[in-house]
Amino acid sequence: MTKSANTMWGGRFAAGPDAIMEAINASIGYDQRLAPQDIAGSIAHATMLAATGIITDTDAAAIKEGLVTVLSEIETGKFAFSAALEDIHMNVESRLKEIVGEPAGRLHTARSRNDQVAVDFRLWVRDQCDLADAALAGLQKALLGQAEAGADWVMPGFTHLQTAQPVTWGHHMLAYVEMFARDRSRFADARKRMNTSPLGAAALAGTSFPIDREMTAKELGFDRPMTNSLDAVSDRDFALEFLAASSICAMHLSRMAEELVIWSSAQFRFVKMSDKWSTGSSIMPQKRNPDAAELIRAKIGRIFGANVALMTVMKGLPLTYSKDMQEDKEQTFDAADNLMLALAAMTGMVGDMTANRESLKQAASSGFSTATDLADWLVRELGLPFRDAHHVTGSLVAMAEGKDCDLPDLTLADMQTVHAGIRADVFDVLGVENSVASRMSLGGTAPAQVRAQVAHWKKVLE
Amino acid sequence: MTKSANTMWGGRFAAGPDAIMEAINASIGYDQRLAPQDIAGSIAHATMLAATGIITDTDAAAIKEGLVTVLSEIETGKFAFSAALEDIHMNVESRLKEIVGEPAGRLHTARSRNDQVAVDFRLWVRDQCDLADAALAGLQKALLGQAEAGADWVMPGFTHLQTAQPVTWGHHMLAYVEMFARDRSRFADARKRMNTSPLGAAALAGTSFPIDREMTAKELGFDRPMTNSLDAVSDRDFALEFLAASSICAMHLSRMAEELVIWSSAQFRFVKMSDKWSTGSSIMPQKRNPDAAELIRAKIGRIFGANVALMTVMKGLPLTYSKDMQEDKEQTFDAADNLMLALAAMTGMVGDMTANRESLKQAASSGFSTATDLADWLVRELGLPFRDAHHVTGSLVAMAEGKDCDLPDLTLADMQTVHAGIRADVFDVLGVENSVASRMSLGGTAPAQVRAQVAHWKKVLE
Amino acid sequence: MTKSANTMWGGRFAAGPDAIMEAINASIGYDQRLAPQDIAGSIAHATMLAATGIITDTDAAAIKEGLVTVLSEIETGKFAFSAALEDIHMNVESRLKEIVGEPAGRLHTARSRNDQVAVDFRLWVRDQCDLADAALAGLQKALLGQAEAGADWVMPGFTHLQTAQPVTWGHHMLAYVEMFARDRSRFADARKRMNTSPLGAAALAGTSFPIDREMTAKELGFDRPMTNSLDAVSDRDFALEFLAASSICAMHLSRMAEELVIWSSAQFRFVKMSDKWSTGSSIMPQKRNPDAAELIRAKIGRIFGANVALMTVMKGLPLTYSKDMQEDKEQTFDAADNLMLALAAMTGMVGDMTANRESLKQAASSGFSTATDLADWLVRELGLPFRDAHHVTGSLVAMAEGKDCDLPDLTLADMQTVHAGIRADVFDVLGVENSVASRMSLGGTAPAQVRAQVAHWKKVLE
Amino acid sequence: MTKSANTMWGGRFAAGPDAIMEAINASIGYDQRLAPQDIAGSIAHATMLAATGIITDTDAAAIKEGLVTVLSEIETGKFAFSAALEDIHMNVESRLKEIVGEPAGRLHTARSRNDQVAVDFRLWVRDQCDLADAALAGLQKALLGQAEAGADWVMPGFTHLQTAQPVTWGHHMLAYVEMFARDRSRFADARKRMNTSPLGAAALAGTSFPIDREMTAKELGFDRPMTNSLDAVSDRDFALEFLAASSICAMHLSRMAEELVIWSSAQFRFVKMSDKWSTGSSIMPQKRNPDAAELIRAKIGRIFGANVALMTVMKGLPLTYSKDMQEDKEQTFDAADNLMLALAAMTGMVGDMTANRESLKQAASSGFSTATDLADWLVRELGLPFRDAHHVTGSLVAMAEGKDCDLPDLTLADMQTVHAGIRADVFDVLGVENSVASRMSLGGTAPAQVRAQVAHWKKVLE
Repeated sequence: MTKSANTMWGGRFAAGPDAIMEAINASIGYDQRLAPQDIAGSIAHATMLAATGIITDTDAAAIKEGLVTVLSEIETGKFAFSAALEDIHMNVESRLKEIVGEPAGRLHTARSRNDQVAVDFRLWVRDQCDLADAALAGLQKALLGQAEAGADWVMPGFTHLQTAQPVTWGHHMLAYVEMFARDRSRFADARKRMNTSPLGAAALAGTSFPIDREMTAKELGFDRPMTNSLDAVSDRDFALEFLAASSICAMHLSRMAEELVIWSSAQFRFVKMSDKWSTGSSIMPQKRNPDAAELIRAKIGRIFGANVALMTVMKGLPLTYSKDMQEDKEQTFDAADNLMLALAAMTGMVGDMTANRESLKQAASSGFSTATDLADWLVRELGLPFRDAHHVTGSLVAMAEGKDCDLPDLTLADMQTVHAGIRADVFDVLGVENSVASRMSLGGTAPAQVRAQVAHWKKVLE
Repeated sequence: MTKSANTMWGGRFAAGPDAIMEAINASIGYDQRLAPQDIAGSIAHATMLAATGIITDTDAAAIKEGLVTVLSEIETGKFAFSAALEDIHMNVESRLKEIVGEPAGRLHTARSRNDQVAVDFRLWVRDQCDLADAALAGLQKALLGQAEAGADWVMPGFTHLQTAQPVTWGHHMLAYVEMFARDRSRFADARKRMNTSPLGAAALAGTSFPIDREMTAKELGFDRPMTNSLDAVSDRDFALEFLAASSICAMHLSRMAEELVIWSSAQFRFVKMSDKWSTGSSIMPQKRNPDAAELIRAKIGRIFGANVALMTVMKGLPLTYSKDMQEDKEQTFDAADNLMLALAAMTGMVGDMTANRESLKQAASSGFSTATDLADWLVRELGLPFRDAHHVTGSLVAMAEGKDCDLPDLTLADMQTVHAGIRADVFDVLGVENSVASRMSLGGTAPAQVRAQVAHWKKVLE
Repeated sequence: MTKSANTMWGGRFAAGPDAIMEAINASIGYDQRLAPQDIAGSIAHATMLAATGIITDTDAAAIKEGLVTVLSEIETGKFAFSAALEDIHMNVESRLKEIVGEPAGRLHTARSRNDQVAVDFRLWVRDQCDLADAALAGLQKALLGQAEAGADWVMPGFTHLQTAQPVTWGHHMLAYVEMFARDRSRFADARKRMNTSPLGAAALAGTSFPIDREMTAKELGFDRPMTNSLDAVSDRDFALEFLAASSICAMHLSRMAEELVIWSSAQFRFVKMSDKWSTGSSIMPQKRNPDAAELIRAKIGRIFGANVALMTVMKGLPLTYSKDMQEDKEQTFDAADNLMLALAAMTGMVGDMTANRESLKQAASSGFSTATDLADWLVRELGLPFRDAHHVTGSLVAMAEGKDCDLPDLTLADMQTVHAGIRADVFDVLGVENSVASRMSLGGTAPAQVRAQVAHWKKVLE
Repeated sequence: MTKSANTMWGGRFAAGPDAIMEAINASIGYDQRLAPQDIAGSIAHATMLAATGIITDTDAAAIKEGLVTVLSEIETGKFAFSAALEDIHMNVESRLKEIVGEPAGRLHTARSRNDQVAVDFRLWVRDQCDLADAALAGLQKALLGQAEAGADWVMPGFTHLQTAQPVTWGHHMLAYVEMFARDRSRFADARKRMNTSPLGAAALAGTSFPIDREMTAKELGFDRPMTNSLDAVSDRDFALEFLAASSICAMHLSRMAEELVIWSSAQFRFVKMSDKWSTGSSIMPQKRNPDAAELIRAKIGRIFGANVALMTVMKGLPLTYSKDMQEDKEQTFDAADNLMLALAAMTGMVGDMTANRESLKQAASSGFSTATDLADWLVRELGLPFRDAHHVTGSLVAMAEGKDCDLPDLTLADMQTVHAGIRADVFDVLGVENSVASRMSLGGTAPAQVRAQVAHWKKVLE
């Protein structure tokens, strides 16, 4: 063990059990981030307590004014957080007492830390759904910009990272627009499902005070109160669902980032990232490492890791609140922050990147990429069954390969040795431009289809 | 190495590369399960091909009749699956060719295995959403049965597995009804989001045949076609979202199962499982191991493990189809089967189990479980600030503990030594029956609230 | 979206691409923690460069003196870290240049950030293996203290959380000593496997300078240099193996913590945690929530989550270094910190906790826990086949259950109605003390066996 | 819901609780695979029971002969497994009773299903460690074959998938030899750690029969008995550690498979897989999809998924045996099978693949890949500090880029305009062959180093 490590270890725990217990138990180090939500929740609660006559209007006014002061102190960095006070709730309440005195002691009437933290964290996660939605919309717009510019730029469509058929750059960009649309839809569903208020569940059983849970729910923007108090303080589904949606979104980002890394290689040269999103080398000034793309690709690790972490924590926990659940926040904070960061970086990168049209087209034009078009022509024009058309096409590709040329380079005579019925108009389908133009089925790669989709999405996103 | 292992190893791979490649590559061993979906998809495709004039009505009729025969052969176990034909698609098509001859070769016009498998698997997962919904509704009904019977049975409400406040059995059962309602809602959202048709995406770029994707989508019960063909063959979000929803559901099951295991212990004796869901011991006939509950608790492992597996597979895959994606099915099949099994077992177990009312009440009545009620009385009746009321209550609990009795056993005189204002009517809130009855806030544990919720859910579930 | 969230979002990224790129790219926010390892590595490298004549002794001396100064500045909090300088390596080198001037520019000869970070991180993880070992030894000692004190305290041995057979407290404590011994053994193996030096791999290909890799390896306490430079900069196995070992260890902690939570319940009352590791309630002063145990139980979440995160990052990365790998550190730091914290808390808690001998024994004595002893007696003394003995025992248990008594309460006459051969000495095996004393097989629960194991472990741990 | 799904669902569970319980509870569907281990364990146990006089030699002989018969029936497919008998243990015992009668009832003396299954499964996992070791050795040999053939073939060394420096094909292949060597070492450590016998732990507490655990341990090839009976029946570390080692190994496979997929692309053309490991297209006969590589890349999903599954199952399980643990086998079976399959496929693929020397060299020669060599020359020959040398090199690269040529194409005069001290011998380090030859540091990419490593590994592996 290095001396340094040993010292740190000793230092960390030398103070004995109290220091260890504080280290494992106190959450103020991270849950201070919930201050705006905590104070919003308390203001709503105090307002309701006065409206229902549980506390006086005077007390409520003092409490609310005090809370506004506390929030201001926190936002301006003047607030001194105390680990001895464990969490954000006690830190705020304690400071409130200093400011407003006795009324502070009435704020916690008909409430418990159990429903309080459930409200705070839920509000925070709800905000993240909104942030994710906004960030995804921004990314979709950046992709649309690329799609519109390159609606008819031809590139290889890959399966198994092998050229399969020519497609258009715009079509490929739009594939990601679809994925991120599903992500937005998932965040929207999650937000809707989580938008019910646990406030008023109290410790776990509800309360005998004549509270008005509809009122606090409305005040905080919730659709309605949760209808079972035990569930209200036990539930962390909202965080798990946010993490699951974030993980799928991060998976999409990892796929796109992988493509950008591969496309940036000297061997592909399909795209060039701007300097802003690359790092160079002092020694090789031409070098442009796709660092941002790689880091985005990696983010799925910690985001899905957070999902695993919280699922593991929740596994097998009896109702209602167990202290294990305190481990929910750091994971969700980290996942949310990194998702937003990855989305912002991807948006910037997509907005800045330059497709290399020439490389794309050249790659699309090799590898007999229009063999399928030839086969389809045989079916359509000569009435061959699909499987027979495949066979004829295979022979023609083999012939071209033997001559070290591509399909359009064969002569009509060559072709007719394989199938006598082939006509000169077959050449119309063998060029990559013709190929993509022909794929006019709904959602197909034809520039006209791409432009229609771009128009659709621009309307959706405006 | 044991001889047996060695032999198996040798046996498995001795046949050389071909056997290894077949073992890793062929999917027919498991994807035969997609036969009904595959054939439904092909029938829809053939119908559309004829309707759009791409194939003749005669061919379409022959194809459809042949497919019905194939399905019947599969369902009656007469079909001979072939690993050499790799997957369900080729197995079906090959047999179709034997039955109907040349027209079989026209079925694959304007289609590819890429969109075909995407349709099949999507249909299968969609069915699982429906199955999960039905199974969850059944479980909710079983829980409602318990809740209705025990709307006013008092039991301890736990935090940290420590008695916190008395609650009602019905209220606790309803907490799970809420959780499973969220699960149903998640499956419904997932189903809706996945209910778009990839058919017609062909290999990846769409097709030049004048297909009608709206028609096949409608035929197969989809809301509409997917609008980007690259996305259509690259997407496995539907499986991932199903797995994420299943994992959260399995987490709920694990929590309930954990409670049932703990409650079945000799120390708790809160519930008795029926023999059907327990295993005994030949030597200890009184023993009733909660095997079913334990197995249900464990199912989250493989279900969430499947989620991790597929997320890991999809991480960083470039578009469009990569063979990696073939690993999607076994994981999803296993997770779905085990979720349905766990739900069925939990439903049976909940329907059969017997709560031990006496143990529940006795446990609820100990541990000063009405201390909060006392504090609330002090706030409500004497106007003490909440924090002060807590302090007085603490002193009274300490006094009772010193006398080795519970709160209702203290005399009024005893109490008045701590706070002179305490009156005789304080005793009204110290009994557990009174305590639960008083928690009339919305979603609270009062029997009246529980009965209202039961009535609500019965209407929803009827 | 709350205004606060919106502002933060705006604030965070308003500065545009540069701010986003710095946020995603710079690692100095966390890798400053590697400063001691980074400087140790640089000192070893400079020493070797001078010894091999690649730089002068004068330059090496200046470099080393400068590095010692830098470390001192960091340790005393005087060092100003710069995000613009990205990482710990550049921060240190830049400051070194300020201090010593031109020689600083020679330190990086025959080295790259790729092998530098690999060395730093490997040294850090190696230290964590040592810390884990020390912490686990401390926990084993605490457990041994409990085992020695309670070598003959009888408690129920559970399967399925149902009483199966009586065992001893010491035996149960020793089960965890075994688990933690395996953990230590895993950390030791991991440490040994990771203890090879990547230094000298340079960027990835090795170097043309005549470096002495054996020398730097030895200087840094490595067993030898790694023998492939591509592997040296690509490898993160050491972190993954540490995380895997940490996860299994955290799983053990979760099992023990679960038992402590259950045993602390009012229903079990097997143990009482000291106040240091519990939290109370202002309202229920008798309440002792096992917070520390719950938090320890939860730690497996983030520790195994980190394992998942890094595995996901590494999946499918081509050689050699990719920026994705920068995501390795935060996960490993967090997992290691939390493992050490959980071990420290568990050690404190085990040292302080008090077993309730009476509750333990009473629980052990109920539930026909000696039925197996009776069956074994029938086999041993009367020669019954095992399965027949089980049958007879079952009848006797049923008889006792019918009479609402336990096995020792049956009369000899009663017993003989079931099997005529039963003799009075059968009662010797029906008491729980006799039962545990009889289980003298190696590793069995007999107090004599427990004491032998305690003696063995005390010698190992002294 | 499709009719078919509905029917299946109905069919599966229509039989009611008994069918559901059997479906969730019975393990014979998969644990029949443990038959050889189960019977080996029983033979060892019977032998010991006779040796210690607990049963007669005659009974032991009958039991052993019967067990041999049972194994033979199983191996020849004549055995009728029964789900009603739940598991492999009861199936074997029941059949044994039919064959040998009463003595069968004595086999289970001093044993329980708890230690029996622990032995069986441990033996099975131990075999898998041996299989993995053998398979990895085979893969290393295949890699060595490639390394030896291409010890001096120049290829680009990548960071960020950007060309960084030239390396040799042999060197790259050897990087994987190192990774797989660490995997072997991990399996060896895991095997050693798991090689202790749980047999004799009985249900959980040990036994009062005078068994000889050393004897059965030795008989079954274990190093010694486990020393705590509670731990012996609670422990599944051996499976978890096997899964963790398998997951890291699968991660290595995923990295290599990723490289093979990328290298097989039309853009890279670095390698050509043989037809055995690729699939073609009926339409594009030239197409060679790297299916095997993709499937290998994907296997980490299910293997690590199994690790997550079992960790999740074990989280928070109280001692000793809980039925949850029955979920250990299917996950481990599937992970082991798929690891072996992936290793076999990778071995075959590596043995067959052809590197395209020309493409490799051409790629290595572009992108200023010898810029580092130039900088090192400036340091070594002209005494420039490293950071200054970088600066000069950067200027020269920029000059070359401006002239659209590579570094060796610059004239000496050109170079001297940047730094007057540059001499003609600088050109010696600018060729890729010279570059790799110069990296003679231990583990460096020089062909001489590669050949030395190949020689070393051939000796290790012979």
